[in-house]
Amino acid sequence: MSDRLFGAILARGPVDALVSDRAWLQAMLDAEAALARAQAAAGQIPAAHAQAITAACDAGRYDVAALGAEGARSANPAVAVVAALRAAVDGPAADDVHRGATSQDVVDSAAMLVARRALDALLIDVEAAADAAARLAKEHRDTVMAGRTLLQQAVPVTFGLKAAGWLVALDEAAARLAAVRDERLAAQLGGAAGTLSALGDDGLDVLARFAAELGLAEPVLPWHTDRTRVADLAGALASACGVLGKVARDITLLAQTEVAEVREGGGEGRGGSSAMPHKRNPVAAVSALAAARQAPGLAATLLGAMEQEHERAAGAWQAEWRPLSELLRATGSAAAWARDALEGLEVDGDRMRANVDERGLAERVAGALAPAIGREAATALVREAVASGRPLAEAVAGHLPADEIARLLDPSGYLGAAGALVDRALAAHQARR
Amino acid sequence: MSDRLFGAILARGPVDALVSDRAWLQAMLDAEAALARAQAAAGQIPAAHAQAITAACDAGRYDVAALGAEGARSANPAVAVVAALRAAVDGPAADDVHRGATSQDVVDSAAMLVARRALDALLIDVEAAADAAARLAKEHRDTVMAGRTLLQQAVPVTFGLKAAGWLVALDEAAARLAAVRDERLAAQLGGAAGTLSALGDDGLDVLARFAAELGLAEPVLPWHTDRTRVADLAGALASACGVLGKVARDITLLAQTEVAEVREGGGEGRGGSSAMPHKRNPVAAVSALAAARQAPGLAATLLGAMEQEHERAAGAWQAEWRPLSELLRATGSAAAWARDALEGLEVDGDRMRANVDERGLAERVAGALAPAIGREAATALVREAVASGRPLAEAVAGHLPADEIARLLDPSGYLGAAGALVDRALAAHQARR
Amino acid sequence: MSDRLFGAILARGPVDALVSDRAWLQAMLDAEAALARAQAAAGQIPAAHAQAITAACDAGRYDVAALGAEGARSANPAVAVVAALRAAVDGPAADDVHRGATSQDVVDSAAMLVARRALDALLIDVEAAADAAARLAKEHRDTVMAGRTLLQQAVPVTFGLKAAGWLVALDEAAARLAAVRDERLAAQLGGAAGTLSALGDDGLDVLARFAAELGLAEPVLPWHTDRTRVADLAGALASACGVLGKVARDITLLAQTEVAEVREGGGEGRGGSSAMPHKRNPVAAVSALAAARQAPGLAATLLGAMEQEHERAAGAWQAEWRPLSELLRATGSAAAWARDALEGLEVDGDRMRANVDERGLAERVAGALAPAIGREAATALVREAVASGRPLAEAVAGHLPADEIARLLDPSGYLGAAGALVDRALAAHQARR
Amino acid sequence: MSDRLFGAILARGPVDALVSDRAWLQAMLDAEAALARAQAAAGQIPAAHAQAITAACDAGRYDVAALGAEGARSANPAVAVVAALRAAVDGPAADDVHRGATSQDVVDSAAMLVARRALDALLIDVEAAADAAARLAKEHRDTVMAGRTLLQQAVPVTFGLKAAGWLVALDEAAARLAAVRDERLAAQLGGAAGTLSALGDDGLDVLARFAAELGLAEPVLPWHTDRTRVADLAGALASACGVLGKVARDITLLAQTEVAEVREGGGEGRGGSSAMPHKRNPVAAVSALAAARQAPGLAATLLGAMEQEHERAAGAWQAEWRPLSELLRATGSAAAWARDALEGLEVDGDRMRANVDERGLAERVAGALAPAIGREAATALVREAVASGRPLAEAVAGHLPADEIARLLDPSGYLGAAGALVDRALAAHQARR
Repeated sequence: MSDRLFGAILARGPVDALVSDRAWLQAMLDAEAALARAQAAAGQIPAAHAQAITAACDAGRYDVAALGAEGARSANPAVAVVAALRAAVDGPAADDVHRGATSQDVVDSAAMLVARRALDALLIDVEAAADAAARLAKEHRDTVMAGRTLLQQAVPVTFGLKAAGWLVALDEAAARLAAVRDERLAAQLGGAAGTLSALGDDGLDVLARFAAELGLAEPVLPWHTDRTRVADLAGALASACGVLGKVARDITLLAQTEVAEVREGGGEGRGGSSAMPHKRNPVAAVSALAAARQAPGLAATLLGAMEQEHERAAGAWQAEWRPLSELLRATGSAAAWARDALEGLEVDGDRMRANVDERGLAERVAGALAPAIGREAATALVREAVASGRPLAEAVAGHLPADEIARLLDPSGYLGAAGALVDRALAAHQARR
Repeated sequence: MSDRLFGAILARGPVDALVSDRAWLQAMLDAEAALARAQAAAGQIPAAHAQAITAACDAGRYDVAALGAEGARSANPAVAVVAALRAAVDGPAADDVHRGATSQDVVDSAAMLVARRALDALLIDVEAAADAAARLAKEHRDTVMAGRTLLQQAVPVTFGLKAAGWLVALDEAAARLAAVRDERLAAQLGGAAGTLSALGDDGLDVLARFAAELGLAEPVLPWHTDRTRVADLAGALASACGVLGKVARDITLLAQTEVAEVREGGGEGRGGSSAMPHKRNPVAAVSALAAARQAPGLAATLLGAMEQEHERAAGAWQAEWRPLSELLRATGSAAAWARDALEGLEVDGDRMRANVDERGLAERVAGALAPAIGREAATALVREAVASGRPLAEAVAGHLPADEIARLLDPSGYLGAAGALVDRALAAHQARR
Repeated sequence: MSDRLFGAILARGPVDALVSDRAWLQAMLDAEAALARAQAAAGQIPAAHAQAITAACDAGRYDVAALGAEGARSANPAVAVVAALRAAVDGPAADDVHRGATSQDVVDSAAMLVARRALDALLIDVEAAADAAARLAKEHRDTVMAGRTLLQQAVPVTFGLKAAGWLVALDEAAARLAAVRDERLAAQLGGAAGTLSALGDDGLDVLARFAAELGLAEPVLPWHTDRTRVADLAGALASACGVLGKVARDITLLAQTEVAEVREGGGEGRGGSSAMPHKRNPVAAVSALAAARQAPGLAATLLGAMEQEHERAAGAWQAEWRPLSELLRATGSAAAWARDALEGLEVDGDRMRANVDERGLAERVAGALAPAIGREAATALVREAVASGRPLAEAVAGHLPADEIARLLDPSGYLGAAGALVDRALAAHQARR
Repeated sequence: MSDRLFGAILARGPVDALVSDRAWLQAMLDAEAALARAQAAAGQIPAAHAQAITAACDAGRYDVAALGAEGARSANPAVAVVAALRAAVDGPAADDVHRGATSQDVVDSAAMLVARRALDALLIDVEAAADAAARLAKEHRDTVMAGRTLLQQAVPVTFGLKAAGWLVALDEAAARLAAVRDERLAAQLGGAAGTLSALGDDGLDVLARFAAELGLAEPVLPWHTDRTRVADLAGALASACGVLGKVARDITLLAQTEVAEVREGGGEGRGGSSAMPHKRNPVAAVSALAAARQAPGLAATLLGAMEQEHERAAGAWQAEWRPLSELLRATGSAAAWARDALEGLEVDGDRMRANVDERGLAERVAGALAPAIGREAATALVREAVASGRPLAEAVAGHLPADEIARLLDPSGYLGAAGALVDRALAAHQARR
């Protein structure tokens, strides 16, 4: 889909190609080839037939458009693909194409292959984003900045801690995506109604071999209408999008003109505006957000499609294909953009320090003042100063020594466990890698 | 997008092409051309410039892929399109391309054009579906069938009434879609931050002329971050999908092997199964459901994107493009399939009559029996018969004359206002057309 | 729900009580009473019976908990309510309770009454919010502030224009809500399967009278499984939430410590933090956002529930009650909080003016410089100044007269049609009121 | 919430009370008590203070309504709860209430406690539902019934296999819910901006002790704006709802009047209709569906709320409370109803066998006929018979021996691996238990 008008914005990165129609077709053919080999290994069909079928399972040999058009007759593309594959296989091996399988076996197994390939690719970007966050956390472990809650300045934090927060969330997202990829993607093989009836006595043997051929888990049962695997995938992808969106949201806020603590790298004329030459728009973060925000709706569609009737659903199964592809693509794009934003992020530590509002230290000052003049008086004095805009140093000048006041008003002395927390996050990241 | 593997299933009908990248590009160019003409009419630029610009506004002249790739630099495709258009316009007119406008002016106006064109097309299918439902309602005004509530047989209805229910819902959906098309699609023109500042004193004049050129409503204000128009579109489309899904759901249920009261037309080998020659799968209804079920999630994404910051959003606006196109496409596909299903529907009136379970008339029989043996005794007698599976005629044989029993057990005599309701629906449909 | 821990935050305003269980029960009883009166007027039952039934239709007389417990037996509360009402009506009138109606007739009609009452109440808050926005727009028609796109400063705008943008969106939301209330809320009466069979020949007459009694529209057909009315309601409410969320989002951004252009009124110790005395958290805006963000998911649930089987749905209808109540409540709460935020908003015009970054005027300066030194040179000079952080006045000092430079750098001179647009919005608001 | 009109339908089971306002308040107080004990253990406060605080942490001592009303001032209920708790603690211990913590520490930790308690309860129902499915699978391991795909009869299956499909899905749902409960629910403690600054040098020590006191995981970092834990919870709950909905959907379809293969247990007059004595509505399945269908929208709201700003979100965090409670409640209700439906399910094996359409065996017959008359002729003969409605036995009478024909048309001989698959599912269930 590289030719699309919005594609470079909304479908950045390698996943787009991995969920394309051609990728789906290849995955369907891979499933057919694996089935033939599994049946040959089980002694159901001649090995030569399996070889002939495998040889024909190259998506480049087929006309996707024609197959798609045919698909409308049966409400799924497998019938047309199987017919085309049979036609492409010479001689008696053609009769052994798709033997004993049902359309959903092929499409579901293909969906799992598509998902695995897309997850492999997008995990590279999620993990690179985590690495970039780790570098930022390490480099800025002690860079003081304002903490902000409800978009109001609170007590100080460090940029290292903020980046460590991104890091931990990205690591959690990556861990869950990897777990779903490794444990929950399974082969599908059940035949017309899930009994493997057309495979005679070899059904379970073929199922095991088929899964092994595909490198997918062997399910306890065919899962034609048990869609927990798809739901797990949806949940993991949408959660990853949420994490990527959180990172991007923070970047857009930190890049605000009035905050100006970070800005995205500006290579290739990026983020510029012809009308407004001063602008350096955070295009990577904005694009990551645009992708990430697709996820909740797409995940809801997949979750809502779990209510599937009997042995194959009339509508709900067919409703999965688009949102599954779109959700993989959106997550891939969000990951690619977030990685881009993090890897190129320009951090202005001086501005961070300068932006810290001393009122974030009022609590600390009041605490230090309490032994001298009593808790209530201390609180009242500090509050009054804050309310009237009077500098805290001036307000408490008579009550504490000047160097003590200076120490109290130094945000770098009120960071609690920030540094140790950064170290924990880095250690956990290291252990995960 | 005719080349896609799932396209003929999930993106049937004319809307697919009308929301394609090329269609979006053409709409953007149409907006640029309209702007130039509006500015010429307002005396801001020479008429010849507007003509030169208009002449260059043909999507066929541009490389969508290249424009898309460029778009990633600015997180929207307009910058690249404007640059390409300027390059394509000879001489000094090039300077008058996109004069005083901002990217969002072009993309939003294009979105409205895309929506209008897609709505025009999909309304044809929705209205044809309504016409088909009207024909069914008229033809089967008095075809008795079982009413079914909670999937259990209730008192009898007619197939005409069921079709009239589809008709009224389709008419309501069409009316709302047409109202949104006619009243809520508006031109967008505000310039960099919505003040029309780069248009000097002519801003409002140009805005009015621009809207007229596009055949879109003139908004009170630029609506860069007031997305009620998009929300209205989303609501109307999702509601239409809900209606189309309801029709399709009923068809799949009536087509069940055990019910067999309708089946879809079977042209072109449709609905067949190579493995199971007896199957006539309701592929149109299934495909309509697969499309319709995309709508709630897509609408939620659009509704969730309404929270747009300041004068242009950082992420939420850019999050609209994909779901808006997808929602138009899904609605178009659902409409095309539902029309197909309704126009070809084969109705088995005899089977409908035969399927009516006499227990649906128990209430009526008990009511008729009450004057003879008292209300409580009548109810008890009927309940006992139903519980034990004893035929009602036999159970009440001693209490009522045989011909009266036969009359009571004739479902065609217990249809209430069904016929009159069908007539109301047909009259309302007639009035609407 | 006034006793709930989160209620004052998440369910502010009058709507909460109007969607309570007691309100639903009263609405169901109102429907029963209206049905009896309609049947009396149609001559089906004695007027005295209708009076006796109406007299018993007071929710205060019933034990909601007991009714609710009973409801589980039939998967809807109407059976229990009808039984309790019959028991409460003395004498033969009891037999005329709920005559010819089905459970869904009562529950759906009640839902429409609940919706109307809630819409009446929440529209007061939406309209008051619009009035407050109008006052802000008028008062700050010429208050210069930075325009912001993608969270970066762009060309200047006025706070009046921003408030006018809120105003127009609020007016659009109110108009749509009022239209749905006035045109789309309809009585439900169809009997067991929608044929009005138990009402004999008077069905349509009773339907018309019933609708008139309730002050609801008379539908063409019973709409037991045509849920476009619910969908229209969902769409209008979710769109209104989107508008309210946009207003609240802008307020939180403008109230940021680093921006500080507005803050919420601080009565009753609001927005304070015990730990951080300097904080004035924008609690109204935050609470409005918390409510508004419920809407897309709730609307999606309602839209997804439109696929209802045959004459009454097995699950989808019952799935509507909670999200419909929640969506009304969330919209009511968002409206009440947004009204609160807008009515108490403290605007700091000086800070707005001071925050304007002169770089937002670079485009203007370059344009004015072009006649003197050529377009390209002018652009280059301005860009260089912006990139290096050199003041624009200094950069162009040699090329333009000092007073011209001062004029160009005055943002109040580069506001385009901002004032006129504010006037348009105010006029439209006036006309609507 | 036992007093609610819809509660017994929509909020069945123990979870409702576990997500009530009182349950939330108790969980907040539990968090405060745990914090005090952790600080005492760390030597920060006297043990007697921790005891005094713990003693006051009994929700029954507080006025939920009053606390809720207070909460509106700060957009979260913690400020009011802390104030009330301080007032309830005598003497100097009052100063040690909530020491060094921030509101979100308390509310998030409480949310995790609420989730754990609700998960404990709902897992009992999910697992009991699985046990019931296991019993059905075992008992009906060889009960032949029609397989159904796209709601059309396909090849035969067994009811045991269908129940085994439910079983595996329920087991997967339970396993995921248990994993989230055991691994992903974590204590929250970070102080005002996540640095633990107000806890001095003991911050990390207190954090570890606090988590241990609560029996929750200790997070690497405070997770104020890393919401992957909430997302994991949402995903697991929504997936479980999808599984429960699938079971319920199958039950409603099997219970259709025309299918009549199962019906729900009818104790306590359940499922009856006053108007239609013959009805046995599947109220448990319908109610399970009504609850399950809430999940996708609620999960989407939670996933959409992951984009949280900086150190504490302005709106997105506050948007979590309602959907989290509602999603727990809906899952609990769906689980309770599904358990109910499965435990009481009445299965009619004779009807299942009688409903099998011999056309589901056409494929098998054609295969057996091929050696005698050739593949093409065999297929043609069978198709023709199916199309014309001619019995298969009659159509192939001349070509195969009568006993062979009888064997081929016996569906119990064409069940493939159905029995072995049931055994696999039962073994996996056994292993899990």
